[in-house]
Amino acid sequence: MSDATAVRTRRYAHLTWPEVRDAQRAGAGVIIPVGATEQHGPHLPLAVDALIAEEIALAVAPQTGMLVAPTICYGNRSRPLAGGGEGFPGTLSLGAHAFMDHLIDVLKALARNGFERLVILNWHYENTNFLYEAAYLAREASASRDLRIMVIEGAFGELSEPTMDLLFADEFPGWEVEHAAILETSLLLHRRPELVLMDRAVDDASIRRTSYDVVPPPADFVTGSGVLWKATQATVAKGEAAWNDIIDRLTDAISAELGEKRETASGY
Amino acid sequence: MSDATAVRTRRYAHLTWPEVRDAQRAGAGVIIPVGATEQHGPHLPLAVDALIAEEIALAVAPQTGMLVAPTICYGNRSRPLAGGGEGFPGTLSLGAHAFMDHLIDVLKALARNGFERLVILNWHYENTNFLYEAAYLAREASASRDLRIMVIEGAFGELSEPTMDLLFADEFPGWEVEHAAILETSLLLHRRPELVLMDRAVDDASIRRTSYDVVPPPADFVTGSGVLWKATQATVAKGEAAWNDIIDRLTDAISAELGEKRETASGY
Amino acid sequence: MSDATAVRTRRYAHLTWPEVRDAQRAGAGVIIPVGATEQHGPHLPLAVDALIAEEIALAVAPQTGMLVAPTICYGNRSRPLAGGGEGFPGTLSLGAHAFMDHLIDVLKALARNGFERLVILNWHYENTNFLYEAAYLAREASASRDLRIMVIEGAFGELSEPTMDLLFADEFPGWEVEHAAILETSLLLHRRPELVLMDRAVDDASIRRTSYDVVPPPADFVTGSGVLWKATQATVAKGEAAWNDIIDRLTDAISAELGEKRETASGY
Amino acid sequence: MSDATAVRTRRYAHLTWPEVRDAQRAGAGVIIPVGATEQHGPHLPLAVDALIAEEIALAVAPQTGMLVAPTICYGNRSRPLAGGGEGFPGTLSLGAHAFMDHLIDVLKALARNGFERLVILNWHYENTNFLYEAAYLAREASASRDLRIMVIEGAFGELSEPTMDLLFADEFPGWEVEHAAILETSLLLHRRPELVLMDRAVDDASIRRTSYDVVPPPADFVTGSGVLWKATQATVAKGEAAWNDIIDRLTDAISAELGEKRETASGY
Amino acid sequence: MSDATAVRTRRYAHLTWPEVRDAQRAGAGVIIPVGATEQHGPHLPLAVDALIAEEIALAVAPQTGMLVAPTICYGNRSRPLAGGGEGFPGTLSLGAHAFMDHLIDVLKALARNGFERLVILNWHYENTNFLYEAAYLAREASASRDLRIMVIEGAFGELSEPTMDLLFADEFPGWEVEHAAILETSLLLHRRPELVLMDRAVDDASIRRTSYDVVPPPADFVTGSGVLWKATQATVAKGEAAWNDIIDRLTDAISAELGEKRETASGY
Amino acid sequence: MSDATAVRTRRYAHLTWPEVRDAQRAGAGVIIPVGATEQHGPHLPLAVDALIAEEIALAVAPQTGMLVAPTICYGNRSRPLAGGGEGFPGTLSLGAHAFMDHLIDVLKALARNGFERLVILNWHYENTNFLYEAAYLAREASASRDLRIMVIEGAFGELSEPTMDLLFADEFPGWEVEHAAILETSLLLHRRPELVLMDRAVDDASIRRTSYDVVPPPADFVTGSGVLWKATQATVAKGEAAWNDIIDRLTDAISAELGEKRETASGY
Repeated sequence: MSDATAVRTRRYAHLTWPEVRDAQRAGAGVIIPVGATEQHGPHLPLAVDALIAEEIALAVAPQTGMLVAPTICYGNRSRPLAGGGEGFPGTLSLGAHAFMDHLIDVLKALARNGFERLVILNWHYENTNFLYEAAYLAREASASRDLRIMVIEGAFGELSEPTMDLLFADEFPGWEVEHAAILETSLLLHRRPELVLMDRAVDDASIRRTSYDVVPPPADFVTGSGVLWKATQATVAKGEAAWNDIIDRLTDAISAELGEKRETASGY
Repeated sequence: MSDATAVRTRRYAHLTWPEVRDAQRAGAGVIIPVGATEQHGPHLPLAVDALIAEEIALAVAPQTGMLVAPTICYGNRSRPLAGGGEGFPGTLSLGAHAFMDHLIDVLKALARNGFERLVILNWHYENTNFLYEAAYLAREASASRDLRIMVIEGAFGELSEPTMDLLFADEFPGWEVEHAAILETSLLLHRRPELVLMDRAVDDASIRRTSYDVVPPPADFVTGSGVLWKATQATVAKGEAAWNDIIDRLTDAISAELGEKRETASGY
Repeated sequence: MSDATAVRTRRYAHLTWPEVRDAQRAGAGVIIPVGATEQHGPHLPLAVDALIAEEIALAVAPQTGMLVAPTICYGNRSRPLAGGGEGFPGTLSLGAHAFMDHLIDVLKALARNGFERLVILNWHYENTNFLYEAAYLAREASASRDLRIMVIEGAFGELSEPTMDLLFADEFPGWEVEHAAILETSLLLHRRPELVLMDRAVDDASIRRTSYDVVPPPADFVTGSGVLWKATQATVAKGEAAWNDIIDRLTDAISAELGEKRETASGY
Repeated sequence: MSDATAVRTRRYAHLTWPEVRDAQRAGAGVIIPVGATEQHGPHLPLAVDALIAEEIALAVAPQTGMLVAPTICYGNRSRPLAGGGEGFPGTLSLGAHAFMDHLIDVLKALARNGFERLVILNWHYENTNFLYEAAYLAREASASRDLRIMVIEGAFGELSEPTMDLLFADEFPGWEVEHAAILETSLLLHRRPELVLMDRAVDDASIRRTSYDVVPPPADFVTGSGVLWKATQATVAKGEAAWNDIIDRLTDAISAELGEKRETASGY
Repeated sequence: MSDATAVRTRRYAHLTWPEVRDAQRAGAGVIIPVGATEQHGPHLPLAVDALIAEEIALAVAPQTGMLVAPTICYGNRSRPLAGGGEGFPGTLSLGAHAFMDHLIDVLKALARNGFERLVILNWHYENTNFLYEAAYLAREASASRDLRIMVIEGAFGELSEPTMDLLFADEFPGWEVEHAAILETSLLLHRRPELVLMDRAVDDASIRRTSYDVVPPPADFVTGSGVLWKATQATVAKGEAAWNDIIDRLTDAISAELGEKRETASGY
Repeated sequence: MSDATAVRTRRYAHLTWPEVRDAQRAGAGVIIPVGATEQHGPHLPLAVDALIAEEIALAVAPQTGMLVAPTICYGNRSRPLAGGGEGFPGTLSLGAHAFMDHLIDVLKALARNGFERLVILNWHYENTNFLYEAAYLAREASASRDLRIMVIEGAFGELSEPTMDLLFADEFPGWEVEHAAILETSLLLHRRPELVLMDRAVDDASIRRTSYDVVPPPADFVTGSGVLWKATQATVAKGEAAWNDIIDRLTDAISAELGEKRETASGY
């Protein structure tokens, strides 16, 4: 099978309906990549979150028997301390109601098609929690008691210790500010280098970081560049190491969780 | 400018935030392609509507000073007499509430960014009317009185008479059943041939066509193949002729409508 | 049976509850006329759409075993190119959410009463699509798998060729602009002449007609009169011819579709 | 002015748009009659509430400078202790969300037309409270600080003492159970006798009446007939007396409240 | 059992989950007190409605086999003629949609826990009707046909004749204006005297009282003090008499209605 | 000032309306404690989250010039890996839509009262993100550009290093599983010992902990006890140390953030 064909056959929407029907009957599951359209500094495209989620989904799909549904490109409202916030030009966000209701309908449509193994694969910090709610409601509305929905809120957490050391040495700043910084830039350099303007990368950090948030954000919560950490430290090698960890771990996780039938907790 | 760069610079989400900011300040508008994930017979991918909408948007963008926002890939509920209906495996549709609310939030986010010339470019019959409502509500919610939203509900209507003759001779069946048939297959053969399984194309038609609809659909409203007309008559040449008409006409239309400021009707 | 009694017995809401119960048990169906409160030029009342929908419903009800539910008088947002738009004084429109949710609840209430043959009979161009969605959702929510809902989006399409010739000769402008013009004026002259101020009728047309729409509408999309075509050409005779076609065809259609049980398409 | 013309000119939807525009400019207000489609015993039509609200509106309109908008015919859920409840065949009710949102949009449309004096005239016990909420929200959404909305939740309360004596002597049972009984039957005998099947009228009462409600209702909350009090005691004379009181009092009330500008309470 | 333990064991949220599980299995029901945060004159706290609802619930719970869920402290919009209205500082109200949806979810959560006897115990005039709707929808959504929800809209109505005489002599003004006046002040003096600033109590009444409402309220609908009747006439003795009546009657009512299984009306 | 008076004067709803008005005019802000009604093992009450949020709010209010609004006692859906999940008896949760809409209306009501410094103080892991959305939307809807809303999603994070050592030594398991365990039990032992059944405390942990979630939860995600870590290690001393840290830090944070006016980031 050529690689072009392989990609076609992993993308749900590039298949014909008889092909999807056959895949479903053969037990295929579906991954829904979820991202955002959000500022990622002067060197990365607004699509970073959607691109990474989609790339990962396409990479883990073959080994886990999954198709990849069209990526959800618009995410929930950007927060200043995690993604720069709504004040940045370019960022296009949905309110929580619209974001959840859209995802719920996508999940229900997949369940209606008879798919019983679904994966929400997210790469946008601010979508957290809304994804679980959508999964819960879609499952509640489904007639099938065998429907299982895996909710991967933060695929960015799947790095091995050596990779963490390679990327951050002793300076890991927490995932919420690793925005447009080492990990995301490195991953894009590895997978989509044509979309990285590395000469414009900067290191930056907000003047203040707090354990709480404020609406509207004080000026010192927000960086001028939209980068929240050290983007210049990104390299292709770091991207490759992180990529390999993420793909390996998520492949294992999906296989373990959805590969065989597990007992469900009581009360559900 | 290389072609790859050109494509990057037309895609809103492939730009960095300073690039989007600069484009907005320079007067750029934004096209939002709207499609669906819906069965299109045994020979076309489920993504047909989204693909065509996006291809057209990318083609008309440069001459009209537009960026292309991420494509809305999930459309409203498929209807049996126009798209085969929800009974077909593979089709993934949103309810009208979720579809509209999602689009409204995208439009509001663009308006919030200061864009005042927006184009909704749709290629899915069942999305009609919901698009206008979304445009109306987004504009009503906007603080800018200069915001104008062009609503292209059926880009499929923009064919010249010679092209209509080339495609249909004397047999034009109406756009609502030209689903997965001559026009769509030809366009995809022209623009995305790698996604067409032409050897599986068939000619088909529902046993009955009525001026009304019925829920749930009688069995004779629906074809077995999902093709609603003569897919085998599609050719690359027909696709190219149709493509050229559509691009020319929509380029003119967008330029005429949003290129200069027009007087608004009273009462708005 | 006197005519007054006949009218009473066709109107759902003019019956007592034991009469409705008995009708339902005897297999009656229910037609829900749907219109609008929208400008129709200087010579026709705002109620045109609601009146015509209701008149037709009352006329086809007896032969098809139907009762006529209270008419839905408020329709979805008027569009400039089809109904003059929201800029005209007098027009009272609902947003799509409120319009659909109201209709959904009416349909669910009828289904809850055990009626299994429902007809949505619409005479307002802008309600199209919203009706189908409401029918789909109401059916989905219903416990009865035998519930069938016929959705007549455009009763205005049911004219024979001779009648089309009589009304338009060679000048049929398309239904969307046949607003407050030959057909509607003629029908009202035939059925409700006391509500037509024929001496104020005018011929009119918008300066531009386009295949797309714009929000807010350019001034040249809208006529000064609210008439979108040649109202002065309306006559009682044209109205009678059109009326007879519509009644005959819809009577046949309802009988054919809901008179006997048809096989439902798979997947519903 | 003939009576037919008079009726036409009071009905908002029977006017042309220039007539409505002129009326609005001349300071007219608008009454929105609100009723229900609900069982009213074996002798009264389901439309009782809508009919009475509409009749009253048409009668008070001329003296108060009001037009009468299309009647809202579908009301909120019937309650067993006030209207027999949803268990009765024939009753068609809306949920509270749909009922309110529909009314809100009607009010907003009238406000958008520049009307600043609106009256919600209700004759359905279960609509109470939802009307006020709709008025509050519509006013909050309106740009006009001069918009005033009068909310007449129970027009049934406007009887003089002599009329109360005539109708009930010493036996007034409370308005909530005066359903399909003396007042409503008498009013309909007076105004719409052709719709009353007086020979089927009965006296009835639920076995229990409580100060609270229960969902679902115990069987002894509900009468077999749907009449909640003594329908056989209704007469034309009682209807006329009640009618005159109601028309007089509401005419005075509307004139007093909306006739001149009153000072608004602070905080609004 | 000490009194402190007793209170703990009546409060649903003060129990551990095994205790709640055991109570449910043993047949316990749950009372949901519903109040408001609304002005109650210069002498009573904003929490009056929530406090009284909660106090009553705790008092009737032991004899009726009920637990008391966390009190719903935010009620629907205050109305000028019943509670002073939204113009008063301090009042915090919910819109009807949010109020109902919140209550619906609470009821559904209790039903999901297996509780089949629920009581909504309300002490806020403006919540009326919304409570019933919530109960209806929650029951409709429940899988259990045995779920029964008692809706006590106005616990204030449960006074004996002697108590009415004691409180009002010949001057009962109607419950809607008995706001922050004799009954509420007396009850609080009896149950929570530490929260009453009796020296600030006043007698007051709006200049006008009408059978209808107006949005926004005319200034003469609203009192300066927020008291709508004679607060200075409140005494501990009146409070105690009223309290005893209410507790006795509601204990009886809940026992009668939910103590044993009653036949449900047909159609539910 | 006696302590009882002090508590009264911190509780928003225990004040009279003139007192709230005066406090607002004098520049007071308002804290809204947000919790849940969720299982917390065999030894802690379901109200833990609401109790701790409220206790903290009352403690930090005096020094920060804040009133404490009625606690929001019902939180968003419990998740198996963070709170045991919806399968536990006793847990009463709201869906995300109802939870957010309720909070939005509370915030809008406070803003409508003129309060410009609001604090959402949350102690329920699953409420995260929904709080921010509510704050964002409430602020967007507010007319005041000076409104600032502080969102404290996890007050549990405010411990000093010595306290972390005291509580967890080397075994800190992450906040998401510190549910019904050392911190919460210790805090309740310190502040509300009468509600702790310490003899029933257990140590527990789910068999598996994953970086993702699954709906419905596999059985090995859930503990039998509802405790997710080592409840038996809780002590009063640990509670006091944690309490002091939290109160000190939050007092400082609120003072710093809302005490003086800060510059707002651009774009808001």
